[in-house]
Amino acid sequence: MAIAQLLGDKAEAVPCPQFELVFRAVAEGKVDAAMIPVENTLHGLVHENYDHLLRFELPIVAETSVRIVHNLIACRGTTPAKVRRVFSHPVALNQCLDFFRSNPQFEKVPFYDTAGSVKMIAEEQLEGAAAIASSLAASLYGCRILKRSIEDDRQNFTRFVLLQREAVERPAGSKGYKTSLVFSTRNVSGALFRALSAFALRDISLTKIESRPLRGKPWEYLFYLDFLGHTSEPRVVNALSHLQEVADMLRVLGCYPRWS
Amino acid sequence: MAIAQLLGDKAEAVPCPQFELVFRAVAEGKVDAAMIPVENTLHGLVHENYDHLLRFELPIVAETSVRIVHNLIACRGTTPAKVRRVFSHPVALNQCLDFFRSNPQFEKVPFYDTAGSVKMIAEEQLEGAAAIASSLAASLYGCRILKRSIEDDRQNFTRFVLLQREAVERPAGSKGYKTSLVFSTRNVSGALFRALSAFALRDISLTKIESRPLRGKPWEYLFYLDFLGHTSEPRVVNALSHLQEVADMLRVLGCYPRWS
Repeated sequence: MAIAQLLGDKAEAVPCPQFELVFRAVAEGKVDAAMIPVENTLHGLVHENYDHLLRFELPIVAETSVRIVHNLIACRGTTPAKVRRVFSHPVALNQCLDFFRSNPQFEKVPFYDTAGSVKMIAEEQLEGAAAIASSLAASLYGCRILKRSIEDDRQNFTRFVLLQREAVERPAGSKGYKTSLVFSTRNVSGALFRALSAFALRDISLTKIESRPLRGKPWEYLFYLDFLGHTSEPRVVNALSHLQEVADMLRVLGCYPRWS
Repeated sequence: MAIAQLLGDKAEAVPCPQFELVFRAVAEGKVDAAMIPVENTLHGLVHENYDHLLRFELPIVAETSVRIVHNLIACRGTTPAKVRRVFSHPVALNQCLDFFRSNPQFEKVPFYDTAGSVKMIAEEQLEGAAAIASSLAASLYGCRILKRSIEDDRQNFTRFVLLQREAVERPAGSKGYKTSLVFSTRNVSGALFRALSAFALRDISLTKIESRPLRGKPWEYLFYLDFLGHTSEPRVVNALSHLQEVADMLRVLGCYPRWS
C-alpha cells in the first residue's frame, strides 16, 4: 500500500520474508528501491530497521505515511459464530484489544505477518480460524472481511521510507524537505543539550528525536533525529558542522521531500 | 529473577497473564508491589508499560537490572537432532538470530511468553519441539537445557522498576538517587531544547530520554526522562519548576535509589 501510494501503479512490489533481506536486495542491486516501515504512531519505532539503516548505509530518498486499518478476515464459508482462533502479527493483535475484550470467545494467536496469516488460513483451510490484516490481503487471497476496522485507535499510521543505492540529488526548491541523521555523544552531563543547540540556535525545527541503545554498550544511546530543512541550505550546513564538533559519530541518513 | 535480585527470598512472586492486570492488582491492593520491565538494551523500550505508567499513576519506588540469558530447552528424551520447531516470545526469537542462522533446520514459532513456551512443550509433550527461555523456566517445568546462552549479544540486560501504591519517602542521603518523569511540549521549534535546558543549566545528568507517540495525536510526542538526583535537592526543585514553565504536561513518576 505504501508503494502504490508513493510511486503509483508503475512500481512492481517484490515480496521478501525478512527486513534484512530487503536491505540486502537493494545493496546488491537486485531491486531498484526498498519501502521500509520505520515508525508506527501507536507502537513506536521499528527498532530493527533503524539498526539496518545504520549498517547498510542506503540513503533515504523519500518518505510516506499510511493509515493502518485492521480487518477480521476469514475463508469463504466461515461465519463469525464459527471463529475460535484469530491469527496475526503480535503488533496487530495488540492494536485490537478492545475488539478482543468484547469478543472473549476469540483466542489471539501470534503469527509472523498480518498478510501472511491470511495466506495461511486460506491455504490450510483451517477450521474456526480468522486473521487480522488489511483489505488488500483479503482480496489477494480470496478471503472475506467479517468485520471492518476493528483497531482500537483510528489514529494509527505507519511511516515508511524509500531507500535506494545512491542518493537522489535534488536542489532545495520551494517544496518542504526533511533531513534524517543519527549521532552519538559521550555520556556526559549536558551532551544531548549541546547537540540540540546546533539546531535550536538556528531555528531549525526537529520533527522527531529517538534514542536507541548502543549495541555492546548497555545504557549508552544513539540518537535518531529528523528536522525540516535541506542539506544545501547554509543554516543546515552550519548546524551539521556544529553538531559534528560535539558528537562522537554523525551520519546523515538522507534528505528528501517531506510527505504531507 | 528481578524480584529475587532486588527483594530477596522473602518476596513471593505472583504470576499474572498481562501487564495491565499487574498494574491493576497493585492499584486495587491485591498485591504489595509490581516488578515491571521497562527497557531492554537490545530491544529498546517496553512501550506498553510506559503507557500503563502514565495511566495508573503508581509511583516507581526502586529499579534493578537483570542480565538476560536465553537457553534452548526441551523435554527430557528430546535430543538436539530431533528438534524441528522452536517456540518462544518473538523478542527472544529475534535475539537469537545467529543461532537460527547456523541451525537452519529449526523453525521459529512465536509464542506469547518465554517461560510459557517451556510450560506448553512440557504439558503437551510436543514431538520435535523446543523452547527458548531462562534456566529458571527449565528447572521449574522439569525440562532440560540442550544449549546454554544462545543469545546473539551477551550485553543483553532488562531494566525493571518496582511500583507501589504509595511513594516511599526517603531523605536524600549519601546514596545515589534517580528521578523519572514524563513531559510533553508544544510542537514548536526549540521546545525540547528549552525543556532540556532546565537540567543542563544546573549540571543535572540525564541517564535516559525517550519519546513516545501521543495517542490520538499522530507525530506528536511525550518525553520520558530519567536523571541523577533526588526531588528534595534544591537544584532538582528548581529544574522541575523551570521545566513546568516550558512543558504542557509534567509528571514525576518516581524518585528512587539508583541500581548499580
